Amino acid sequence: MFREAIQRMAPYVPGEQPRPGEHLVKLNTNENPYPPSPRVRRAVAHAVLGSALKLYPAPQADDFVAAAARRFGVLPRMILAGNGSDELLAMLFRATLGPGDRVAWATPTYSLYDTLAAVQEAHAITPPLGPNFELPFEALVRARARLTIVCNPNSPSGTLTPRRTLERLARRLRPRLLAIDEAYVDFAEENALSLVRRLPNVLVLRSLSKSYSLAGMRLGLCFAHPAIVEQLRKVKDSYNLSRVAIAAGAAALDDEAWMRRNVERVKRTRAAVVERLRRMGFEVPPSSANFVLARMAGRDLGPLAAALRRRGILVRYFRSWPDALRISIGTPAEMGALFKALEPLAAAFAPAPSNGRARS
Amino acid sequence: MFREAIQRMAPYVPGEQPRPGEHLVKLNTNENPYPPSPRVRRAVAHAVLGSALKLYPAPQADDFVAAAARRFGVLPRMILAGNGSDELLAMLFRATLGPGDRVAWATPTYSLYDTLAAVQEAHAITPPLGPNFELPFEALVRARARLTIVCNPNSPSGTLTPRRTLERLARRLRPRLLAIDEAYVDFAEENALSLVRRLPNVLVLRSLSKSYSLAGMRLGLCFAHPAIVEQLRKVKDSYNLSRVAIAAGAAALDDEAWMRRNVERVKRTRAAVVERLRRMGFEVPPSSANFVLARMAGRDLGPLAAALRRRGILVRYFRSWPDALRISIGTPAEMGALFKALEPLAAAFAPAPSNGRARS
Repeated sequence: MFREAIQRMAPYVPGEQPRPGEHLVKLNTNENPYPPSPRVRRAVAHAVLGSALKLYPAPQADDFVAAAARRFGVLPRMILAGNGSDELLAMLFRATLGPGDRVAWATPTYSLYDTLAAVQEAHAITPPLGPNFELPFEALVRARARLTIVCNPNSPSGTLTPRRTLERLARRLRPRLLAIDEAYVDFAEENALSLVRRLPNVLVLRSLSKSYSLAGMRLGLCFAHPAIVEQLRKVKDSYNLSRVAIAAGAAALDDEAWMRRNVERVKRTRAAVVERLRRMGFEVPPSSANFVLARMAGRDLGPLAAALRRRGILVRYFRSWPDALRISIGTPAEMGALFKALEPLAAAFAPAPSNGRARS
Repeated sequence: MFREAIQRMAPYVPGEQPRPGEHLVKLNTNENPYPPSPRVRRAVAHAVLGSALKLYPAPQADDFVAAAARRFGVLPRMILAGNGSDELLAMLFRATLGPGDRVAWATPTYSLYDTLAAVQEAHAITPPLGPNFELPFEALVRARARLTIVCNPNSPSGTLTPRRTLERLARRLRPRLLAIDEAYVDFAEENALSLVRRLPNVLVLRSLSKSYSLAGMRLGLCFAHPAIVEQLRKVKDSYNLSRVAIAAGAAALDDEAWMRRNVERVKRTRAAVVERLRRMGFEVPPSSANFVLARMAGRDLGPLAAALRRRGILVRYFRSWPDALRISIGTPAEMGALFKALEPLAAAFAPAPSNGRARS
């Protein structure tokens, strides 16, 4: 009695989560290695005081949206709060795509898009990124999709498409929708939020999972023209954020300094990690995210990932893209543990460094 | 660029939520008047300790599911956790219904079903309940819908369809699915959970919003054959419950005594409220839920609801069913406030009690 499309499809498989009590260096799902603002804990404690939880939450997560409006200088009616940005992506697919409708994105990217398209029975048009991970601009325009998504910075490449390119793309696609999935953008040097004020066909999605260290709380934001927000609300669960999530989200946004400090620490570690991986012979594209992509063109790095797993270190291996590993940026100590395990292993995989020694 | 069905449809409108600082006697959205178990607060405090929130939650909400498995004696693989039972309903519609597919339920009932059917562009077949709110059994069988839903106890009538009738219905519908929405069932004298162990086409949905006083936390459960759970998972957001929600849900289920005590208090109050409303001239069907339906056949009770609202008392008025008000059961003090406001107002609406005095 299930829809055929559902029976046929494979489920989305999130990265491995350690079982309780299992101590692993977790560099596989791009969590922030630093804790969230202490204000979050205080806000949560307040939200569960007395009998507060007996009442339904605000359907539009008013306090969280108000905090986002203050923080980003966007009108509340241009903001939609989600139970993680995954929920906002699901709403977007649900509201825009029916059977056979075209949706487009460049690959490789966040594989959840495939799952969401399959649920809607939409036709996904997925041109490949260029050799240096450039957006296949003309192919995306030619797709004439109802919805085009750019994950920016992109996962798993970590690379950034400049805002001016996205603006150009949005203008070419108009009136079709362009959604810019900025889950990782706080680790980059620029973002595209200003486009939603100027272009009625642009949506910008944000997550509090990475930069705000709140993956465990499920908080996302969508910014777009009020007419877009109005339609998306129709496919939203009535009370999609709990009272606790609303309070936590507002508190986190109100402590931007805390987030910025942690982001800067991650970026410093990232620079050191990129350099060290390159010295080991990996190709590493410049990263604007809280992870890096370590590649050895043409080699299957699955056994390397498995060997790291046996040493208690989780990194992300994609079967569809076997010559690369995606490695989240942890603390300097965690990255030290990674390299301690990785260096002897990688020697077996790496091509001999071409006059590497001579240069240093 | 939105689907036509979405543009056309009206959004679901949840009951009024008081603004912060607004003090109202809130009897319109069936919240529990008593606080949740203190164990919930402790579990939440523990879930946000240190840097716990930086990590993603368990995708299948393991601890909450394990607590439900213990509490209800159902295997974990027959349980799916939801961000409220609303999310589980949405998943169910999404996984089973495509454009034109039939879905059936008796009316009047929870109006969210209409919204969810509209999102899927499903064809809703909605025979009316009988004069005493009996299930239109044969009409539901004849509908031959992929999915049939029975809200039981039903909202807004509060009435209960016996389990044996539901079992008979499930057998007639087989292999088509029967979902029994038991959001209010802890306030009733029986439930249909045992059917999921015997019938592979039955789903039972539960909510922690009402009996467990956790409307603000968003927690729901679906019980069904593992093959059903497996399909539903495909349309679930990867991490649909936060770490906080998982911990709160497990703690609440582990304190059944607390829930039972509050349910018994609500049931005692309910009995008194039903009697008093009937004495005032309302027709009140027997309620198995934490609300009652107060009816005056043929009269529009909208002005009565509005007058109560002006006196700081919220009850639920449905424009589609204007001769009835749905009144949640609050504390005895809250119900006292209701009657204090209601009695002088209702006198203007009520028919003269036919030899009411003579009998008492």
